[in-house]
Amino acid sequence: MTQYRAAGVDIAAATRAKELMTAAVRSTHGPAVLAGMGAFGGCFDAALALAGMQAPVLVSSTDGVGTKTLVAAALGRYDTVGQDLVNHAINDILVQGARPLFFLDYIAVAKLDPVQVAAIVGGVAAGCRAAGCALIGGETAEMPDVYAPGAFDLAGTIVGVVERDAMLPRADVAPGDAILALPSTGLHTNGYSLARRIVAHHFAAEGYHARPAILGGQTIGEALLAIHRCYLPEVTALRAAAPVKALCHITGGGIYDNLPRVLPAGMGAAIVRGRWDIPPICQLLVEVGGLSEQEAYHALNMGLGMLVIVPVEAVATALATAPEARLVGHVTATPAVRLVDEGE
Amino acid sequence: MTQYRAAGVDIAAATRAKELMTAAVRSTHGPAVLAGMGAFGGCFDAALALAGMQAPVLVSSTDGVGTKTLVAAALGRYDTVGQDLVNHAINDILVQGARPLFFLDYIAVAKLDPVQVAAIVGGVAAGCRAAGCALIGGETAEMPDVYAPGAFDLAGTIVGVVERDAMLPRADVAPGDAILALPSTGLHTNGYSLARRIVAHHFAAEGYHARPAILGGQTIGEALLAIHRCYLPEVTALRAAAPVKALCHITGGGIYDNLPRVLPAGMGAAIVRGRWDIPPICQLLVEVGGLSEQEAYHALNMGLGMLVIVPVEAVATALATAPEARLVGHVTATPAVRLVDEGE
Repeated sequence: MTQYRAAGVDIAAATRAKELMTAAVRSTHGPAVLAGMGAFGGCFDAALALAGMQAPVLVSSTDGVGTKTLVAAALGRYDTVGQDLVNHAINDILVQGARPLFFLDYIAVAKLDPVQVAAIVGGVAAGCRAAGCALIGGETAEMPDVYAPGAFDLAGTIVGVVERDAMLPRADVAPGDAILALPSTGLHTNGYSLARRIVAHHFAAEGYHARPAILGGQTIGEALLAIHRCYLPEVTALRAAAPVKALCHITGGGIYDNLPRVLPAGMGAAIVRGRWDIPPICQLLVEVGGLSEQEAYHALNMGLGMLVIVPVEAVATALATAPEARLVGHVTATPAVRLVDEGE
Repeated sequence: MTQYRAAGVDIAAATRAKELMTAAVRSTHGPAVLAGMGAFGGCFDAALALAGMQAPVLVSSTDGVGTKTLVAAALGRYDTVGQDLVNHAINDILVQGARPLFFLDYIAVAKLDPVQVAAIVGGVAAGCRAAGCALIGGETAEMPDVYAPGAFDLAGTIVGVVERDAMLPRADVAPGDAILALPSTGLHTNGYSLARRIVAHHFAAEGYHARPAILGGQTIGEALLAIHRCYLPEVTALRAAAPVKALCHITGGGIYDNLPRVLPAGMGAAIVRGRWDIPPICQLLVEVGGLSEQEAYHALNMGLGMLVIVPVEAVATALATAPEARLVGHVTATPAVRLVDEGE
């Protein structure tokens, strides 16, 4: 049995939550998950999972989904944030070149509602299952005096693996290399504090239930809860087809803060306006919130979910391999990430 | 560089927190931590760390420190809960037979205070350093509408490793096997909701600053913040000297809920009253709070921090190896964990 303990006061509710989520958790287990080995920690067969690798490097990341949980709670929709959490984590280790092995989640609530917790964990399990990642543990904590009433927090830890010589970013990223973008589904898991303020101020009456025309029939709440896209399939295909030099997951801080993390010192990037589609929810927040371009591209991904750096000669192959990708810019010999006009 | 990102609104405060904690985090890094490999995920050299192992199994656990954070916040003492977090996690994977490899933490706050966060991470790093565990990542999230003002949450994930044939519990645990106890330092990380209620009700005037005689000069707050003991040194020595069949870390649910998790189906345990010292803070809570024995041993560890199951013939060697250990009981052929009188 894998570790699935619940801390807190209401042990009966915790037990019920555990029953509801057991089947979902088990559905993520492949042959590397050692069942029946005790309940204090999840057990994963490294000998099996790393078999045949020459120099395996474990890549691990912990993250949360931020205040997207508050939007979910306001809408009473608990089955999507778990997928956001897993997909965000997978994208983060993809940037190092790694593929996912296993995941553990942490859910903290003011008051334990078994159905709600089971829906959250069901989403975590769905995200894991889709990516071939085992959900081997987790913790659900009930802490009434720590959390605001009705609020919850959701964080998780992923462990993946990569051959040492396949790690990214590669050292040969160079000025002139092409930057492709894989599209985002919306805000993913960043910018929700800003988005919530804008919605509260400009849509005071209907709030998340408003349906501005730009969203094409969706409510603001639905658009904000769009699931963080997992780029594992596209990135796997791209790396098989083209010499990918670097990947960049656009999270908090946007292109300005994230691109420099994968570029060699002294280099920057030029991103050409108009080369890709900006998600309607991002357009809405920019227009209604009166955000400057600088503010928008710092707080939001603006449709640039995952950037892929390849040599110019590999662009055609990459675009054929990932039809949703767009050529959005190139690496520059000077630092700073700049938005430029076509032909600039 | 390992992953140490901060989510939330106050990027300047987050940057300052990051600077303050960098040295502490680096002090935990051995040769298996791959530095300079990008900032999205912590990288750990599995080829190096697992070299020479026949059938390595990764054991992983996620947990928090519960509302011990509220006691820490009330006393303005932020340097100990990180050690609680790490030691708890190490003890949990010890129960599977594993030794720690690396750790990632998750800190969530209503408002980011760089000095406070650096103190928390400093504690996490101190716990890791003492156990030879690398702190390779973490996340600090600022979420003003999720957390109660002044409150914070602290969770973490550990990854350890064990040879498959050295995993615990062993299948040969049998009625009559001896149960030894390694002492706890106090509540460790469980029972704080109960303890806070008792303190609020019975020490309303002085609260955590009260100094009841039984605590021998300590305040209640000091006794409650006593650091969760890490049993890695004793357990390593015991496993080298004696055929340890099972370990049991006494956490939420006490001996009643935790012992059955490591015993074969149908077996139970008899624990003999008076065979070990009950920490003064546990005695105080039982007396002042009017807890029944059943309540006390369900909510608190009552001094039984880690239980060690060995064959009777290994008891003398085990006690000589771990002088603080006490022979507290034995495995029974019937289910249920019972407290019994000497000679019963």
